Amino acid sequence: MNKALTQVISRIQELINRQEVIEAWLQKQSQQPRQALTDAVTQRQHLAELELLVNRLHPADIALLLESVPPEQRTLIWNHVEQKSAGAVLLEASDPIRQQLIRQSHSDDLSAVARHLENDEIADLVHDLPKEIIPDLLSSLPGEDRDAVRSALSFPEHCVGAWMEFDITAVTQHMSLDNVLSKLRDQGELPDNTGYIMVTDEAGSLTGMLTLEDLLIHQGQLSVAEVMSPVGIYFQTRDQAEDAARSFERYELIIAPVVNSHNKLVGVLRVSALMDLMDKLAQQKMLVQAGLSNEENLFDPISRSARNRWPWIALNLLIVFIASQIIDQFEQVISQTVALAALLPITANIGGNAGNQVVALVIRGLATQQLAPDNRLQLVRKELSVALLNGALWGTITGFLTLLLYQNINLGFVMLLAMFCTMLFAACIGVGIPILLKALGQDPALGSSVIITGTTDTLGFFIFLGLAAMIL
Amino acid sequence: MNKALTQVISRIQELINRQEVIEAWLQKQSQQPRQALTDAVTQRQHLAELELLVNRLHPADIALLLESVPPEQRTLIWNHVEQKSAGAVLLEASDPIRQQLIRQSHSDDLSAVARHLENDEIADLVHDLPKEIIPDLLSSLPGEDRDAVRSALSFPEHCVGAWMEFDITAVTQHMSLDNVLSKLRDQGELPDNTGYIMVTDEAGSLTGMLTLEDLLIHQGQLSVAEVMSPVGIYFQTRDQAEDAARSFERYELIIAPVVNSHNKLVGVLRVSALMDLMDKLAQQKMLVQAGLSNEENLFDPISRSARNRWPWIALNLLIVFIASQIIDQFEQVISQTVALAALLPITANIGGNAGNQVVALVIRGLATQQLAPDNRLQLVRKELSVALLNGALWGTITGFLTLLLYQNINLGFVMLLAMFCTMLFAACIGVGIPILLKALGQDPALGSSVIITGTTDTLGFFIFLGLAAMIL
Repeated sequence: MNKALTQVISRIQELINRQEVIEAWLQKQSQQPRQALTDAVTQRQHLAELELLVNRLHPADIALLLESVPPEQRTLIWNHVEQKSAGAVLLEASDPIRQQLIRQSHSDDLSAVARHLENDEIADLVHDLPKEIIPDLLSSLPGEDRDAVRSALSFPEHCVGAWMEFDITAVTQHMSLDNVLSKLRDQGELPDNTGYIMVTDEAGSLTGMLTLEDLLIHQGQLSVAEVMSPVGIYFQTRDQAEDAARSFERYELIIAPVVNSHNKLVGVLRVSALMDLMDKLAQQKMLVQAGLSNEENLFDPISRSARNRWPWIALNLLIVFIASQIIDQFEQVISQTVALAALLPITANIGGNAGNQVVALVIRGLATQQLAPDNRLQLVRKELSVALLNGALWGTITGFLTLLLYQNINLGFVMLLAMFCTMLFAACIGVGIPILLKALGQDPALGSSVIITGTTDTLGFFIFLGLAAMIL
Repeated sequence: MNKALTQVISRIQELINRQEVIEAWLQKQSQQPRQALTDAVTQRQHLAELELLVNRLHPADIALLLESVPPEQRTLIWNHVEQKSAGAVLLEASDPIRQQLIRQSHSDDLSAVARHLENDEIADLVHDLPKEIIPDLLSSLPGEDRDAVRSALSFPEHCVGAWMEFDITAVTQHMSLDNVLSKLRDQGELPDNTGYIMVTDEAGSLTGMLTLEDLLIHQGQLSVAEVMSPVGIYFQTRDQAEDAARSFERYELIIAPVVNSHNKLVGVLRVSALMDLMDKLAQQKMLVQAGLSNEENLFDPISRSARNRWPWIALNLLIVFIASQIIDQFEQVISQTVALAALLPITANIGGNAGNQVVALVIRGLATQQLAPDNRLQLVRKELSVALLNGALWGTITGFLTLLLYQNINLGFVMLLAMFCTMLFAACIGVGIPILLKALGQDPALGSSVIITGTTDTLGFFIFLGLAAMIL
């Protein structure tokens, strides 16, 4: 199965990399006079093959393909995606790619594409669509659907409301199971099968959940209220989507009802939407930690990518210039013992990496909620103990190596002490910075690698040269 | 709902932090003569409350609680977990915690705990159980179950086989829907409802899937084969579990059949198991990148934590000593212009962080499969262009700052050039190292922050001092 997919994708890659295919397409676009007939025939065959292959793929695979080719070829592929799957492709693509594809599409095409989508999908897409097509698009929906889309639009992305689906199968609790069955038979199929039907009272408030098994194994005369399960875990539209995702993971949920602030059933959360969210968050964390805006894509335009890295480079430069000025203060000591300049990076560098190890642990602990306000002090104590132990050990090793290299006992002793102190500081900073960022309402991973290496460098130089000035 | 959970957990934390509760428990353990009667009554009340509260929690929440308290209190809580949920708690806990809890439990208790679990859960746990109880445990299972556990034990953790469940509801394709219905009614309930029933032929080969809706909306005389859906996506026991998880995410699956190499249906994969896997992998990536073994837990014993960090500290020390020896070769130049010692860390540090930005992008691209062999060269071109642009820009800024600080045009020029070259190198290394690690069959994130900062330091110093030696 996977091998077949790989083959289709490499054939597509092969096609779009052919000069003549690109030319044929450009020609078709601009409707210029054709070249020699033989050429044109092969070219059209290639384009037809491309269209066939692309539309044989699942929308998620088309999106992946679009992400992994450069912008020009992306447009070429995008123009061959069928209208009925184009909406799904847009939804699967990452934000910058989606925006690029939308910019390159005609408004009319986009309206047509959107009409193939469900309400919650339209709501997900609407923010990125050109403003001029939205009124038309909304007015083409039936009244109830229009209201649903409008209400979904009002939820910010971190809220459960933005991730829920609102095309749901719900029944009222006074119906008999036979009534439910004939209702289902009329519909023909449940939207997106998960085996659960939500139950409300006459006023639309959530009262329970019915499984399809309940329908199968109980007598038809029974009422829904008699066989339904009580509502277990449910969410409010304003709950944090990330917390909801953690609950899904922890309690192994597949689907959960969502209510508004009046306990009215307004939608359902599905595990597949939350899996996307979790993956997005995990990836963001990695980029954010390295000091990248979470929007950067592998093949973003060069100028955009370059600018995306500026804020952290600038901060980095500021910190390292401060560190540099600290070294400058010790010019006197360095000119007496030039070996100090060579040994300078050692403590700072080891400190930086030791700090990064602690940061990674703390960020993970915060994400999994294992680290909470009550056990912070405990963690500080543990990390300080580890740093004392490792500082003593690796300080001794480094001091000894220095002694061997420079035959200078005092210099070795300076290294030992500097290493020990820097590792202690690095542990404090490593625990402190993510917790501080979190307390400030920021992502605890935000630029941590720049901040940690910057801080340990500055302190590391100061400690090492300060000790050298005192001892040598 | 979440607030209630938080309250229960803080009350438990409060109880286990009381000295008298711990003492009462220790006394109960050692069955020493009681203290004054009044004391004993309160103490027993506290312990009873603790037991009540702990067992009111979901096993996943108990596991989280155990992870976030220090070892002594962990034992206290663990001893109050009811036998019927203890197995689920062990399965939810991380590897080191699970191993600790098992070490502290009696063999008899563990056997009793295991008997509350399903076959695939026993298989997950068996590796960590004491060897002496396994034969007894296996022989207490019915013959068929025993074989299932044995076969599950043979799959390595990265395989689909290790993550599948094998207590599945399957029917043969010649059965009528009425037969299926009465079979289900006899069972009373499907294990872990997802709305799907797997279909096999007489020989046990997978031939399709039946939804519960199919049962509800079709006539009972029809045969399963007439209404079932064809098998869409399925996995083999030896497939990579990570790939399976990506497919679940991409195609929004909830459940998928697993077959052995003879196409016999042997189990199912569920989205909840794979969500755990994805989360585990995302967290591992973060730790591995910082140079931590993925096993380290927030509250591991100090000596274990300290040792866990040694390999990368050692590598780091080796690299930075090499960098230091490079600086040492330029002693002459530094003693002439001591300012060089102060400026030394700047290029290396900026290069390191720029490299880390690229690494984060590349690791993400490899994980999402957006980066494949066909578009690597493209990425190298893009990243080199970004580095050219940013190198020129930030080189000029740094050169100008140096000029301002030291009133030395040549020194400013050295900084500009050094910055430019180091950023170019950092981009190459940032793209190259994760791809190389992946090609070597390693995790592309493995220790990347140590490797990148080490390499950019070494090169950064060499470039900066080399240019200084030529120009100054």
